[in-house]
Amino acid sequence: MTTPVRVTVWNEYRHERRDPKVAAIYPDGIHTTIAAGLREHGLEARTATLDEPEHGLTDEVLNTTDVLIWWGHSAHGEVADDVVARVQQRVLAGMGLIVLHSGHFSKIFRALMGTSCDLKWREGNDRELLWVVAPGHPIAEGLGELIMLDQEEMYGEHFDIPPPETLVFISWFSGGEVFRSGACYTRGAGRIFYFRPGHETHPTYHHPEVQRVIANAARWAAPGYVATRSYGNRPPHVPGS
Amino acid sequence: MTTPVRVTVWNEYRHERRDPKVAAIYPDGIHTTIAAGLREHGLEARTATLDEPEHGLTDEVLNTTDVLIWWGHSAHGEVADDVVARVQQRVLAGMGLIVLHSGHFSKIFRALMGTSCDLKWREGNDRELLWVVAPGHPIAEGLGELIMLDQEEMYGEHFDIPPPETLVFISWFSGGEVFRSGACYTRGAGRIFYFRPGHETHPTYHHPEVQRVIANAARWAAPGYVATRSYGNRPPHVPGS
Amino acid sequence: MTTPVRVTVWNEYRHERRDPKVAAIYPDGIHTTIAAGLREHGLEARTATLDEPEHGLTDEVLNTTDVLIWWGHSAHGEVADDVVARVQQRVLAGMGLIVLHSGHFSKIFRALMGTSCDLKWREGNDRELLWVVAPGHPIAEGLGELIMLDQEEMYGEHFDIPPPETLVFISWFSGGEVFRSGACYTRGAGRIFYFRPGHETHPTYHHPEVQRVIANAARWAAPGYVATRSYGNRPPHVPGS
Amino acid sequence: MTTPVRVTVWNEYRHERRDPKVAAIYPDGIHTTIAAGLREHGLEARTATLDEPEHGLTDEVLNTTDVLIWWGHSAHGEVADDVVARVQQRVLAGMGLIVLHSGHFSKIFRALMGTSCDLKWREGNDRELLWVVAPGHPIAEGLGELIMLDQEEMYGEHFDIPPPETLVFISWFSGGEVFRSGACYTRGAGRIFYFRPGHETHPTYHHPEVQRVIANAARWAAPGYVATRSYGNRPPHVPGS
Repeated sequence: MTTPVRVTVWNEYRHERRDPKVAAIYPDGIHTTIAAGLREHGLEARTATLDEPEHGLTDEVLNTTDVLIWWGHSAHGEVADDVVARVQQRVLAGMGLIVLHSGHFSKIFRALMGTSCDLKWREGNDRELLWVVAPGHPIAEGLGELIMLDQEEMYGEHFDIPPPETLVFISWFSGGEVFRSGACYTRGAGRIFYFRPGHETHPTYHHPEVQRVIANAARWAAPGYVATRSYGNRPPHVPGS
Repeated sequence: MTTPVRVTVWNEYRHERRDPKVAAIYPDGIHTTIAAGLREHGLEARTATLDEPEHGLTDEVLNTTDVLIWWGHSAHGEVADDVVARVQQRVLAGMGLIVLHSGHFSKIFRALMGTSCDLKWREGNDRELLWVVAPGHPIAEGLGELIMLDQEEMYGEHFDIPPPETLVFISWFSGGEVFRSGACYTRGAGRIFYFRPGHETHPTYHHPEVQRVIANAARWAAPGYVATRSYGNRPPHVPGS
Repeated sequence: MTTPVRVTVWNEYRHERRDPKVAAIYPDGIHTTIAAGLREHGLEARTATLDEPEHGLTDEVLNTTDVLIWWGHSAHGEVADDVVARVQQRVLAGMGLIVLHSGHFSKIFRALMGTSCDLKWREGNDRELLWVVAPGHPIAEGLGELIMLDQEEMYGEHFDIPPPETLVFISWFSGGEVFRSGACYTRGAGRIFYFRPGHETHPTYHHPEVQRVIANAARWAAPGYVATRSYGNRPPHVPGS
Repeated sequence: MTTPVRVTVWNEYRHERRDPKVAAIYPDGIHTTIAAGLREHGLEARTATLDEPEHGLTDEVLNTTDVLIWWGHSAHGEVADDVVARVQQRVLAGMGLIVLHSGHFSKIFRALMGTSCDLKWREGNDRELLWVVAPGHPIAEGLGELIMLDQEEMYGEHFDIPPPETLVFISWFSGGEVFRSGACYTRGAGRIFYFRPGHETHPTYHHPEVQRVIANAARWAAPGYVATRSYGNRPPHVPGS
């Protein structure tokens, strides 16, 4: 793509407005920090949040979005079902989707996965090491062999997702757990990436390597010119058959 | 498994009761023919249909079902959402699921796949050749290199499903189309197999090789003793960490 | 990548020099036709052939090659084992590899796959339809829903390859066969694409859609900046552990 | 299968004969301990070792083996190439193969994978936790959510293998590393399982859960009645085409 990838960063944006500890880390919201990181990597980024009309995800916004990034946690149930259906249709039509951290329990991720997306977790002072297991994958481009996060919330297996088509990262936690932290999927013509880090009480989205992964993932998930698809009742393709 | 696999064959059972052409092929319903084939292969089989209370899929039935087989076509919309949710939970807990032919558009298959499951089709006199592309797979056990069906409805690509974890069959149609006709998935602890043939106006489920595939698939999909899973807030696994 | 992808097109280049029928279609060799097509799509292309010193695949050439394309048929056994080992090392280090048609039996493809790579075949007048089954994949970018080739050699299943990580095309042949015609793999940091068409007696590599697929595949297979890998005896990553 | 799976356990059998520390743990060799564990799980097991004629892997032995288990470490280079080729042919024909621990560098595993199979390692006192990430898979049958090994050699990523078709275990090591410890592959009609544990200086193969995994894997890898395959020059399948 010679034109910049157009990313919309969606955030629930509730923790930052009610919890001073979170506001201290993300004064303008997690979405603003992520969008700034994308721009530094040469992508186009705008934002949308839960409390905007239609959660900021109108047809007009979605139709001009190459890749949607999703962060949600405490208000998954408030996301309107028709907006979820609209996003799902856009993904099947080719829009990329990057689901972050607690977005594992979002309606859109569960609808696209078909599983419970449950996991085990622990808020605390775990150290997290994200090991690259697919070093040639575009999402790992330019990384070292691992990313170290001094403190993060723990997410542990079993993570109830379909087997990833490609597994890019596996996390190690100091408490003894592992987690499939970077998982790629195709649904329809769309590419989906789940990326584990970023609990709201940690400065994870300020981390340069985390920003790089999200930018790499947006480039990877951005749609090209999708091959023609046709469905329904069709005549034979072979003359005379 | 030393005890026989317990299969429940679910059928919409509408075409057979209203269309004499279909009734001539399946006088007691598609489900009865499929169940008889399973018994010849040494499996335990009972049936359930749409118009029974709770569609015949009560908790008691599902809790004693190892593998559920699903055939539906004209009445997908009449299947109650809570029964669909119940079946989905059972699959995630380990029950096998075999979805046949027009079941591609069933609520349960779409919920588990996350995609539209759309395809192209043509009722007519196409010849279908189902080529085995995974000859060592348990579902292909004892087959030749292909199964020939003299007349079948055509299903053609693009078939909007997630990439199969294992692809067992590819169909060739005389009209010029191909189709991924045998597709394996894992969702939660459950194994799912989609198998393309069986339009209601053709005697496909009387075909010995088709019966063998369905029996093989039921054995493959039957759950063993699933490894323990735990979710939610958890203390560290490593003492002192 | 802002710089053009650097492709080396390798060809056995024997049929064209001894068979007038082939020479009429590819007067300067299959490699020259493929390279011209790549240049029209904005890629950098040079060529190498079997009878050059080191088969034209010196360290210097390989070290400045992003993607290697391989066409061979009658002289697989003449390719030197040390050149094969050198190419394999380069693929594991990140170089892309596109194996065409009868290259399925090349030493390099068999070494990377670990299987016999055998198939069934028939020289004749089969019509081939290549259906896109992964419409959102970069290799299918800009295609219609299928590519039609009026006459080609038939390749049929079973094709003894590892299950493709992504299957992009399935071929239909008028004689009744199907074939997994576009198959993606990762080996080490390298991406590999097998693409079925191109028997030497047919003008397949002059076909615009075939040229487009090869160009798309070269862009997809070109390496980025591979994440760091380290191997061997290592101290712990966690201080004090 | 109603008849017991016939397993041949192959062991290099050198460490046990020259290192008293290893002999104290495996007085009759690693192979004897593994075979005893298999028998307790109802499988038939015999053994073969490097220093027997043809390494104990004659045609007669291989032709009556359903699943071959491979442990090697210090003498990979002494395994004769023709025996490796013979084993590879048998795997492609359907024989199961379970490669243990340092067998990652064996000729047979590298030939079937096509990659370097390199990794990082550390002999020491690491604790290893093997987490089940595919709880419904036959190889995980009857396990808890993890297996704990108090002391093992560390193997860490990057592990240079093709992406596993199914990933069953991920290991956590106290030094900060993770590893894809249980990896399933198909090559030809054969099923392959790589299982990470058992350094010769630790009593790992006496561990009941490790024995259970190896028995489960042998049952999973045992061939059924493979579907017919045919290769080579073939007439059309469709009359009149």
